[in-house]
Amino acid sequence: MASFVESFWGERNNGFDVLYHNMKHGHLSTKDLADFIRERAAIEEAYSRSMTKLAKSASNYTQLGTFAPVWDVFKISTEKVASCHLELVRKLQELIKEVQKYGDEQIKAHKKTKEEVSGTLEAVQNIQSIIQALQKSKENYNTKCVEQERLKKEGATQREIDKASIKSKKATDTYKLYVEKYAAAKSDFEKKMTETAQKFQDIEEMHLLHMKEIVESLSNTVKEIHLQIGQNIPDVDDEGYSIKPEASQNILFSIAKIL
Amino acid sequence: MASFVESFWGERNNGFDVLYHNMKHGHLSTKDLADFIRERAAIEEAYSRSMTKLAKSASNYTQLGTFAPVWDVFKISTEKVASCHLELVRKLQELIKEVQKYGDEQIKAHKKTKEEVSGTLEAVQNIQSIIQALQKSKENYNTKCVEQERLKKEGATQREIDKASIKSKKATDTYKLYVEKYAAAKSDFEKKMTETAQKFQDIEEMHLLHMKEIVESLSNTVKEIHLQIGQNIPDVDDEGYSIKPEASQNILFSIAKIL
Repeated sequence: MASFVESFWGERNNGFDVLYHNMKHGHLSTKDLADFIRERAAIEEAYSRSMTKLAKSASNYTQLGTFAPVWDVFKISTEKVASCHLELVRKLQELIKEVQKYGDEQIKAHKKTKEEVSGTLEAVQNIQSIIQALQKSKENYNTKCVEQERLKKEGATQREIDKASIKSKKATDTYKLYVEKYAAAKSDFEKKMTETAQKFQDIEEMHLLHMKEIVESLSNTVKEIHLQIGQNIPDVDDEGYSIKPEASQNILFSIAKIL
Repeated sequence: MASFVESFWGERNNGFDVLYHNMKHGHLSTKDLADFIRERAAIEEAYSRSMTKLAKSASNYTQLGTFAPVWDVFKISTEKVASCHLELVRKLQELIKEVQKYGDEQIKAHKKTKEEVSGTLEAVQNIQSIIQALQKSKENYNTKCVEQERLKKEGATQREIDKASIKSKKATDTYKLYVEKYAAAKSDFEKKMTETAQKFQDIEEMHLLHMKEIVESLSNTVKEIHLQIGQNIPDVDDEGYSIKPEASQNILFSIAKIL
């Protein structure tokens, strides 16, 4: 199994930054998901309202003639579809609350984590500045050595050569100091970064598990309501739709009402 | 099988009127059904537009973090649902055209029928007015006979009795005339009404058959699209939804993009 600790040492030791921002993006995704579900709920609510209006239209159509009883069927089935979509709205609103609750928990957890990994951030900053200083001292050491050699070759005065030698010695000491400092910083960085990478991985795994649960819940809710809606599409062979031309008794009954 | 011809002789011979208006109500039902489907199509169109907008929202959410790939799944499935509802709109609009075409045919057929049954309407009006006249002549006959008897009993002059006798004779002739007229009108009415009741029954049966076909078509269309929508609710276990915390390769791949 691939893991964060094996993968985020990164260029210029920026892996920490990447993992930290990845954690923060997790909260953005939670907010986005809540917005997405909220927008869907609004769409379903508008649809439900329109279908309720359509059911009212059905009951306002002419009650005269033999087709009249069919309007009752349309009215009832349309009302049922409207109520299914309203049920979906209710369930989505519950889900939004859960997502928001999780989002709030995320903020707290991220704040706590930020404090916990502050030492690692310092270690990162420390190694980054030491690497810069090490690079600089290495360059300075090279320059000073080359300068000393040049003076020797060109037969400069002893005084000039001694002066260059002191500078070269000083550069060598500084360079050696930063090599040691780098070794210590690297060890500290590696220890802290190993722990922190694991921490970020745990957070990420928990986050994705949570998001998966929410998406599952969303998908199941939509599926469940979809099934309910399917049960409310009336069959033409259903009792209510029994417009059978040969069933003149019904026709007579309908017409009898206007006699 | 009950039939119109057995049932619409009705009170005061008004069965014709009932059957004629029942035919006209058939056209109202057709117009109502077109309106109902039109309103449903408008609702579906609005829903489809909103879902398209929601799909755009999904693609505008943060592309950072490990959840980002899921937005593509939401975007695609939401677009598919939007396009299913748009397909429903298209099919409903086709159906509205069919209903309107049928409504136009109905108007023509009803106009033709009105001409064809004009003789029956005349026969109805004829028998109605003859029944009134018959009733009146019967009452007059009774009055005149009673009057003649009264004069005889009260010992009126011969001149008065003769005058009453002439009146009574005239009333008797008129009454007899209307009895004969009624017999002829009744025969004519029964013959024409029998044919017309059958004609109205044929029209009604054809109408209900046509309405049944339209309702069947509406129901099947809604069912078909409902099935299609069901196929576009993504399973969380589907490939696109594979937010598996342990699948760190994917996570790393996602994060790698921001590195």
